[in-house]
Amino acid sequence: MKSSFNHTIQLRVRYGETDQMGYCYYGNYASYFEVGRVEALRSLGMSYRSLEEDGVMLPVSHFEVDYHSPALYDDELSIKTSIVLLKGARLFFEYTIHNANNVLISSAKTTLVFVSKVTMRPIPAPKEFVDLISKYHDGE
Amino acid sequence: MKSSFNHTIQLRVRYGETDQMGYCYYGNYASYFEVGRVEALRSLGMSYRSLEEDGVMLPVSHFEVDYHSPALYDDELSIKTSIVLLKGARLFFEYTIHNANNVLISSAKTTLVFVSKVTMRPIPAPKEFVDLISKYHDGE
Amino acid sequence: MKSSFNHTIQLRVRYGETDQMGYCYYGNYASYFEVGRVEALRSLGMSYRSLEEDGVMLPVSHFEVDYHSPALYDDELSIKTSIVLLKGARLFFEYTIHNANNVLISSAKTTLVFVSKVTMRPIPAPKEFVDLISKYHDGE
Amino acid sequence: MKSSFNHTIQLRVRYGETDQMGYCYYGNYASYFEVGRVEALRSLGMSYRSLEEDGVMLPVSHFEVDYHSPALYDDELSIKTSIVLLKGARLFFEYTIHNANNVLISSAKTTLVFVSKVTMRPIPAPKEFVDLISKYHDGE
Repeated sequence: MKSSFNHTIQLRVRYGETDQMGYCYYGNYASYFEVGRVEALRSLGMSYRSLEEDGVMLPVSHFEVDYHSPALYDDELSIKTSIVLLKGARLFFEYTIHNANNVLISSAKTTLVFVSKVTMRPIPAPKEFVDLISKYHDGE
Repeated sequence: MKSSFNHTIQLRVRYGETDQMGYCYYGNYASYFEVGRVEALRSLGMSYRSLEEDGVMLPVSHFEVDYHSPALYDDELSIKTSIVLLKGARLFFEYTIHNANNVLISSAKTTLVFVSKVTMRPIPAPKEFVDLISKYHDGE
Repeated sequence: MKSSFNHTIQLRVRYGETDQMGYCYYGNYASYFEVGRVEALRSLGMSYRSLEEDGVMLPVSHFEVDYHSPALYDDELSIKTSIVLLKGARLFFEYTIHNANNVLISSAKTTLVFVSKVTMRPIPAPKEFVDLISKYHDGE
Repeated sequence: MKSSFNHTIQLRVRYGETDQMGYCYYGNYASYFEVGRVEALRSLGMSYRSLEEDGVMLPVSHFEVDYHSPALYDDELSIKTSIVLLKGARLFFEYTIHNANNVLISSAKTTLVFVSKVTMRPIPAPKEFVDLISKYHDGE
């Protein structure tokens, strides 16, 4: 099911997230996208914390990111997170990050998989989630 | 120029690198690949530290990674780093990570760009590096 | 000069900041205190970013922290930062962190040192900072 | 019981562990001390991983560190870890870090607490550990 759901949050680059180039270290973007993802789900009506407490994990199986322009210390970044597709156990997200001057910092995609904590095997998305995302069903 | 240079190192998953799923957090692999890259360059005869001291930076412009199987706390991982292509200012790396049971944990690619610290613009790879990598020239 | 300046901010524990105990990893609190410190300075009227751009660094020389109760994933934490003393080049901060149920999570202290980027030696606090903090002068 | 057990390991400062000052970020030392601690226990004959699998956790309750001199990117650090005291459920470690020029980088102390994963309460150190550490009993 294609989705048109998206959500934007702001966060600041922390000092410890910079490296000696003076840029936000390339490995730290993964946690920014995670924050974007979690807050997107929360705004959709789903708590990732509750999901895990109900026995469902959502690990990342694929991650790709392009770094267009560096993010600097104390930059206030806007992270736009889009849920683009739910296909069986797999959930596809896309992201863009812009700084306060509206410069594109990075764009990224992740694939996550609904996994049972009991069997450790992929499972279909929980009905609660399907119901929430259905409201944003996009396309034929 | 295609290259056949590759290098393997071992490292252990630190406690702080796990998350509450009990897996190595997906965002921490970026620093593992960085370690692989730096040690590959060192074994080739190039110190990344010296490169920066000589006014050349090597930021990452693209990163993609597939997570095949989780890495766990204290797992001893083998990171194989391959330099696959040098094309103008751009240097292409590929990686695989296996655990001690030879299970494939992840595979990844990065693109890095030689950048002048003075102009902050892409520059051709330093001659010193081209000379080193030429010994591993692969292809016609 | 003793100071009574304090400031409180909220932040959430990120997924990547937990460890396999299910707790926020003990090493991640340092960045929480840094966020508290930077936002306290900003609310006082001083940008740490501008300070560095003006040639002054403020590295940490001492850090101590007591962990009273674990912080969990997605917990919304309140970080209270107090500037308690300015003594020559040294600036002393104290912190407490509480969760949303007002449980004390941790308490900490840091000592920071004003350092010149040129000489790399300690220097007296910049006059701009002394003027700002003087408004919160506490005691005889 | 006082102990004279100590152990030294080497590790290199990773690029992502530096900050824009060009120093190893103050928050990253906690993971260095953790590596020192885990390898000290391993050399003593105890696997921290096995300890957790046997239902015992060892969270940090107190951490203090003095930063004497900055660690730089790619520095090879020697971390000396000493187990100094076992007192009921509490285990006291001390650490020093030197660089390759034998400059003292930092010194630190941590207190850890043996905790049952079932009751989440402090418990006496496991007999297996007491037996191992007894060989290094120091003092009257």
